[in-house]
Amino acid sequence: MKAIILFGHGARDARWREPFDRLAKLWQEQHQGTPVQLAFLEMMQPSLEDAVSNLSAQGATQITVVPVFFGQGGHLRNDFPVLLEACQKQYPNLTLSATPAVGEDLAVLQAIVDFGARAI
Amino acid sequence: MKAIILFGHGARDARWREPFDRLAKLWQEQHQGTPVQLAFLEMMQPSLEDAVSNLSAQGATQITVVPVFFGQGGHLRNDFPVLLEACQKQYPNLTLSATPAVGEDLAVLQAIVDFGARAI
Repeated sequence: MKAIILFGHGARDARWREPFDRLAKLWQEQHQGTPVQLAFLEMMQPSLEDAVSNLSAQGATQITVVPVFFGQGGHLRNDFPVLLEACQKQYPNLTLSATPAVGEDLAVLQAIVDFGARAI
Repeated sequence: MKAIILFGHGARDARWREPFDRLAKLWQEQHQGTPVQLAFLEMMQPSLEDAVSNLSAQGATQITVVPVFFGQGGHLRNDFPVLLEACQKQYPNLTLSATPAVGEDLAVLQAIVDFGARAI
């Protein structure tokens, strides 16, 4: 079974995660056969490892991690691959993969442009 | 004249800003009559103040600031309003306003869901 992890940075303020919760809900409504988990790099739970563990317990065998970041800086280039590799070692029977950051996607950028255009 | 500022967090790694540069380019291609500037909270230039100054020099009179953040945590709830107010005081003849974070927009979230769906 396929599953998806939406991986965000995390923040001290609990309200920061609201769009992430909304994102997971949207995903689950539209892709009911593909379980989703949020995961955070720091300051919020669950960790990537906990999310992988949870999905594995649900029967996931192929997990795609989507970094919900705009830019690909040190967090995604350095910290994230280390975390992902550690998860892969811990769950050798899972197929773990990752996409580029969502900010690399033209449709995401276009949605931001359109949001700005409606606001001016 | 209306103008727009796309306001991001900033990061140490210069490559982090690539999607922001792409975003500004997209905006300018599609909205040629509305100048755009990037601005960053920290670690990258220009600052919000510099971006406002630049747009004012170009003749902007109404500037909308779009926070290119997913979540609204301490940066947007505490730091950003202070910066915006300081800019407003410095440029009393400008009309400065701000939208919610782009992560509050359903179409942006849907684009992220669709990106994930294409990847699994």
